[in-house]
Amino acid sequence: MAEKIRVAINGYGNLGKAVELAASAATDMEPVVVFTRRDPASVKTSGTPVVRVDQMADWEDKVDICVNCGGSATDMQAAGPAAAKLFSTVDSFDTHAKIPEYYAAVDQAAKETGHLGMISSGWDPGLFSLNRVLGDAIIPTGNTWTFWGPGISQGHGDAIRRVAGVVAGVQYTIPLDAAVQAAHDGNGQTLTARQMHRRECYVVAEEGADKERIERDIVSMPNYFADYDTTVHFISIDELKKNHSGMPHGGRVIRQGQTSQGTNQVYSFQLHLDSNPEFTGAVLAASARAVYRLHKEGKTGAITILDVPAAYLSDKSPEQLRSELL
Amino acid sequence: MAEKIRVAINGYGNLGKAVELAASAATDMEPVVVFTRRDPASVKTSGTPVVRVDQMADWEDKVDICVNCGGSATDMQAAGPAAAKLFSTVDSFDTHAKIPEYYAAVDQAAKETGHLGMISSGWDPGLFSLNRVLGDAIIPTGNTWTFWGPGISQGHGDAIRRVAGVVAGVQYTIPLDAAVQAAHDGNGQTLTARQMHRRECYVVAEEGADKERIERDIVSMPNYFADYDTTVHFISIDELKKNHSGMPHGGRVIRQGQTSQGTNQVYSFQLHLDSNPEFTGAVLAASARAVYRLHKEGKTGAITILDVPAAYLSDKSPEQLRSELL
Repeated sequence: MAEKIRVAINGYGNLGKAVELAASAATDMEPVVVFTRRDPASVKTSGTPVVRVDQMADWEDKVDICVNCGGSATDMQAAGPAAAKLFSTVDSFDTHAKIPEYYAAVDQAAKETGHLGMISSGWDPGLFSLNRVLGDAIIPTGNTWTFWGPGISQGHGDAIRRVAGVVAGVQYTIPLDAAVQAAHDGNGQTLTARQMHRRECYVVAEEGADKERIERDIVSMPNYFADYDTTVHFISIDELKKNHSGMPHGGRVIRQGQTSQGTNQVYSFQLHLDSNPEFTGAVLAASARAVYRLHKEGKTGAITILDVPAAYLSDKSPEQLRSELL
Repeated sequence: MAEKIRVAINGYGNLGKAVELAASAATDMEPVVVFTRRDPASVKTSGTPVVRVDQMADWEDKVDICVNCGGSATDMQAAGPAAAKLFSTVDSFDTHAKIPEYYAAVDQAAKETGHLGMISSGWDPGLFSLNRVLGDAIIPTGNTWTFWGPGISQGHGDAIRRVAGVVAGVQYTIPLDAAVQAAHDGNGQTLTARQMHRRECYVVAEEGADKERIERDIVSMPNYFADYDTTVHFISIDELKKNHSGMPHGGRVIRQGQTSQGTNQVYSFQLHLDSNPEFTGAVLAASARAVYRLHKEGKTGAITILDVPAAYLSDKSPEQLRSELL
């Protein structure tokens, strides 16, 4: 048995826990440390030692890959390049508009120090990106659609919770069947945001709050809800905890096009996830394996999942993959 | 504009035509020659020059990638390594049991001559393999299913046409919805061949032939039909030509598993193809682009699609992929 890949987990929220779970389950990896900004004594892991994030540098020689599981995009823009100076890294940076800038920052930090940093892994960006690229490469004449859900959107939940009078709430993004069918049939070119997804909100209001006003504030909120058909359900905090504490998500990428006049070809990729963070953590763990191997081969700088052969993500040998899964 | 990738097409059946179509449509490739075992004067291409296969060696310096579109597995076992001695190659070798042996033969021929040969590309093996590997890598605790169809299976059609009294015929492989659902729900572990697919045959019988005997011979045929619920429809040659001359196919790969107790995660990939050969040809053309690039970087020997980063299959630059599709 070869030595195990030593994984550091930078940030221990839902995603950090999921990476710990996936790395512990893998036969070729082990989580060796959690970095936190909180008091380490207050962080209860499943056995992985916890240290303050400012002690990260002490772990330079005791970690193979650091998986950045930090919070917001703002945090990551500094934390990603900082970690890449000490370790080879993996993260799930998902602010699409800032990817080129973030890529450049991680690339520079990693190249200067001889590390390799994979940015924006997970499922979107990540596996969905992989499928958008493959669909586009194979069917050059066509259209690509991405549908999200059914599932909980963290960003939209945050937006609900900022409305005055709201105690708690979650939001489900739901793709509309007719739009999925239209995309599949090649009739989706004119689909609007409203035609593609609807939004369902479960909200706990303060006692005595004006529910009509809360509902109006939510459904009319620009960017988040105004462009969608949005339903607001008021429920109790108990119902919220009982029925809406999971983090399901998923979605699909559809590439539809023609290889010759009238010859429709449809390529689709779909995820149905009971737990968005656990699945994302599993993708990050497999990505850590790939980064470890590519770095061993001498690759440095920034990469994305688009730069990684599938075989590098697998714990099986190339021979086994060819004989069993090819 | 960079110089175009010069593509040779070795064999000009349905697949060879499809590769010519895809390479002609690509902005960065051009089909430069077709190799044939037939009389070149009898081969009508869409403009690509045609020469006898025994003149292949004359094209060594005029071709970047040779796409092997030859017929049977038996042909390919000799033709693949032979072509790899002259060119970097791509093929769609699909005899699963012989892949390790074939890989070794192409690997040796290509390494000795400094070429790179991608074997077993297309959709299965090919994109389906990629998804079997990714699903297995990301959800280590789970099960993988491959469903084929609805679509025409060439091998089963050939089997029908060998039955005495059969003039012509085609066979549709049809996945059963209940089995797809069971796989999706994690209840598919005990699915039998009969529960996963059914087979539908459209047969033209000789005049006066004993149709009951033909039907019996088909449905009881071991390996091909005996393990499935098979329906035989007798039709006229005109109906066959009118309604069954297309080559639709497709299918799906499902990986279902758990990342923790009770947390189901479902990964699925699906193709609906109006034309199996045109789609396969499109995958081979994108594969040729990847082989060209990897060979330029100095890679030699045999590879599969599992060894290729997605970005290498795309005609877009890494920067464009990151900003538009990641």
